Amino acid sequence: MNFHTRKWIKPEDLNPNGTLFGGSLLKWIDEEAAIYAVIQLGHNRVVTKYMSSINFVSSARQGDVIELGITATRFGKSSLTLHCVVRNKFTQKNILTIDEIVFVNMDENGRPTPHGKTEITYLRDRNLEDADRAT
Amino acid sequence: MNFHTRKWIKPEDLNPNGTLFGGSLLKWIDEEAAIYAVIQLGHNRVVTKYMSSINFVSSARQGDVIELGITATRFGKSSLTLHCVVRNKFTQKNILTIDEIVFVNMDENGRPTPHGKTEITYLRDRNLEDADRAT
Amino acid sequence: MNFHTRKWIKPEDLNPNGTLFGGSLLKWIDEEAAIYAVIQLGHNRVVTKYMSSINFVSSARQGDVIELGITATRFGKSSLTLHCVVRNKFTQKNILTIDEIVFVNMDENGRPTPHGKTEITYLRDRNLEDADRAT
Amino acid sequence: MNFHTRKWIKPEDLNPNGTLFGGSLLKWIDEEAAIYAVIQLGHNRVVTKYMSSINFVSSARQGDVIELGITATRFGKSSLTLHCVVRNKFTQKNILTIDEIVFVNMDENGRPTPHGKTEITYLRDRNLEDADRAT
Amino acid sequence: MNFHTRKWIKPEDLNPNGTLFGGSLLKWIDEEAAIYAVIQLGHNRVVTKYMSSINFVSSARQGDVIELGITATRFGKSSLTLHCVVRNKFTQKNILTIDEIVFVNMDENGRPTPHGKTEITYLRDRNLEDADRAT
Amino acid sequence: MNFHTRKWIKPEDLNPNGTLFGGSLLKWIDEEAAIYAVIQLGHNRVVTKYMSSINFVSSARQGDVIELGITATRFGKSSLTLHCVVRNKFTQKNILTIDEIVFVNMDENGRPTPHGKTEITYLRDRNLEDADRAT
Repeated sequence: MNFHTRKWIKPEDLNPNGTLFGGSLLKWIDEEAAIYAVIQLGHNRVVTKYMSSINFVSSARQGDVIELGITATRFGKSSLTLHCVVRNKFTQKNILTIDEIVFVNMDENGRPTPHGKTEITYLRDRNLEDADRAT
Repeated sequence: MNFHTRKWIKPEDLNPNGTLFGGSLLKWIDEEAAIYAVIQLGHNRVVTKYMSSINFVSSARQGDVIELGITATRFGKSSLTLHCVVRNKFTQKNILTIDEIVFVNMDENGRPTPHGKTEITYLRDRNLEDADRAT
Repeated sequence: MNFHTRKWIKPEDLNPNGTLFGGSLLKWIDEEAAIYAVIQLGHNRVVTKYMSSINFVSSARQGDVIELGITATRFGKSSLTLHCVVRNKFTQKNILTIDEIVFVNMDENGRPTPHGKTEITYLRDRNLEDADRAT
Repeated sequence: MNFHTRKWIKPEDLNPNGTLFGGSLLKWIDEEAAIYAVIQLGHNRVVTKYMSSINFVSSARQGDVIELGITATRFGKSSLTLHCVVRNKFTQKNILTIDEIVFVNMDENGRPTPHGKTEITYLRDRNLEDADRAT
Repeated sequence: MNFHTRKWIKPEDLNPNGTLFGGSLLKWIDEEAAIYAVIQLGHNRVVTKYMSSINFVSSARQGDVIELGITATRFGKSSLTLHCVVRNKFTQKNILTIDEIVFVNMDENGRPTPHGKTEITYLRDRNLEDADRAT
Repeated sequence: MNFHTRKWIKPEDLNPNGTLFGGSLLKWIDEEAAIYAVIQLGHNRVVTKYMSSINFVSSARQGDVIELGITATRFGKSSLTLHCVVRNKFTQKNILTIDEIVFVNMDENGRPTPHGKTEITYLRDRNLEDADRAT
C-alpha cells in the first residue's frame, strides 16, 4: 500500500477537546478514496456506495502529520473495492482502518455500468523510479 | 427519532459530479452525533470510537434540504451507542443509515470512565410542547 | 418554538478573543432561516429581504453547544416573517434574538410572487410523536 | 466613507439559487466592522453588541466584485457606533446598508470599560496621499 | 499605493505553530490581486500568469490586523503587472512583498487578447474625497 | 520526485471563471511543502522564508485530479530548499513549477538554528516496495 496524501493538523481541524475532529478525517478519506477510484476507472463518474465499519484506534493532535493509504482489493463488474489505512507519519501508529470502501462506476445517465477493469492499472510507474522515495 | 439539524445543499457541498460530496455528509454526521453525545453525557469529553458500516442509499442535489436524525440505542458502562438516519426533508427518501456510532466517555486525563447514565435524559421537554412542531 | 440545528463551537468558529465569532453565528442563522422558509414555501426560490435589529445578549465559548430556534410569525402575500432565537443548549442562556427575518417568495424569473400560504404547514407531525424528544 | 475590503463572488459564496448567500455577506461585514473597531480602539478586546435592521436591497452574482464601506458615526463612553454600506464595485448599486453596528470596548476581564476616544483617529493619512486612489 | 483589504487573524488562519499559515496569506493575496486586475480591465476574464519571488519578511499572530496593498506598475499589450505589499496595520512592519504579479487579459474563448489600457483608471475618485480616510 | 498529495477539483475550488482558483492552489502547495520540511527536519518548527518565481503554465477544471510533487534540493545550515511541481494526473500536463521554496529551522524561541541534516532522510523506504505503486 502506498501512502499519498498527508495532512498537517492545524487549529481549523480540531474538535473542542483540542484533538483531530473525526468529521474532518472522514471528509479527507472520502476525497482520497474517490481520487483513487477516479484514477483507476479513468473518469469522474464514480459514486461512494458503501463503507465497512470504522474503528477509531487513536487520535491525532495539532502539529501531527498523518498520511492516508489506499489500495484496491477487488474489481467487481461495475464496482471497485478499496482498503484504507490512516496513520501517524512519525510514530507509524494506526489512527483508523476501513476494510472496504466500495465505489460504483456510472454511465452518463447516472446508472451503474461495467468498467471492464480487473486489476490495478500502473498509470505512472516511472515516477516511482525517481530518487527521493523516502518522503 | 427526532430530526434536528438540517442542511441546504449549496455549491460548496458538491463533488465534481454536481451531487452532494459524501465527505461533507460524513463530517456533518460526526458533528451532529458528537453533539447528541455531549448533551446526553453532559460534557465535552466524548470521543468517537466506532461506526458500523454505511450504505449510501441515494444522493442529494444542489438546493435539496436534508435532515439528520440521531437517537441513543444503548448505554454501556463508559460508552453510548447512537443510531443515525439521514433523509431528504421533502421526499422523505433515505440517503443513508448508520446503525451504530459509539462514543466513549472520557475523564480529565483522557481515559475511559463510567458515565453513570442508563437512559435518554429529557433535557428540554417543554420546548416540544410548543406550537409549531411541524418544521 | 422548536430548536432544530445545533452547533458545537470549535476552534474554527472563534474570533481572536477566543469567543464565538459573531459573523459565523450570523451565517448559521441565515442558513437555518432560509431552510425554514424553503420548507414552508415548498421550493428554493426564497430571498432574505429584511432582518430587524439584533441584540447580542451573550457570547459562547469553545465547547459550548448552541441551538437555533425559528418560527413563522406572519404570512404576507408574497412574504414570510420568521422569529429567531439562539441560546446555549445547557444553560438556556439567551445568546441573541432577531424579532423579524423576512423572506420573499420568487417566481422563476426572480420576481416576487404570491405564495398562497396563510399558516405554518405541519409537514412531518409524526416525527414529533416519536420517542426521544429530549435532545 | 472609504470602501476597503472587496470580495470577488466565487462558487463557494453562492446559495442554491446561484446568487450570493446572505449568510456569507453577513460574515464578511462582521469581520470588516470588527477590524474597523479594533483599529479605532487600538486593541482586540471589542465585542459586537448590536446591529440595527438590515435591508437587503439587491443581490450579487458569481463574478461580481463587491466592496464594503464602514465609518464611525458615534463615540460613546465605552461604545463605538459604525455605519456600513455594501455595494457593487462596478454598478455602484447598493446591496445593503446597516445604519448602526455597535461595538463595546472591554477590559482584560471582559467587562465594558471607557475607551477615551471621541473622534476618528487618522492612523495612516499618508497612504491616502499616494497615487492610485482609483481602485 | 492604497491598502484596501484587511484581515483579522483568527484561529482558523493559523499553522500548527500558532502563527499565520503562509498558504492562507497567499490565497488572500491572489484574490486581492485578481480583484484589482478585474477592476482595471473591466471584466472577469483575467488569469494569473506569473508571480515573482516572495520574501516572507515577518509573520503575524492571532489578533493581528494585516492589510494588503496592490498597485499597477506596467500595462503590457494583453498583460497587467501588479506590485503587492502586505504589512501589519498597527506596527507598519512589512510581512511580505511581491514585486510582480502578472495577469493576462483573455477573450471569450480563453485566449490572450489586447486590453487597450495604458494607465490606471480612476474609477471612483469621489469616494476618496470623503471624510474618514484614516482607516 | 514523488508525487504525494492529490486534489480532486470541486466547485469550492473554482474562481468566478470556472477554473481552478490560483489562491487555493498556492495554499495547497504551502501546506504540502511544509509537511515535507516537517518530515525531513523531524519537528514542526519550520517557517516558509522564500519562494522563487512562479509560472502558471496551465490551469485545471472541475473534476480534474492534480498531484503535487516536492523534493529537497539543498540542505543549508539552518535552511532547507525544496523544488515543487504541480501537474494534471491524467494528462501529465504541467500546471506550475516553483524552483525553490526555502524553509528555515527554528528553535523553541523562534530563532533560526542549525538542523544538522545534509541529505534526504529515507523515513519509510519499505512502503515504496509495496505493491500498487501505480496510483
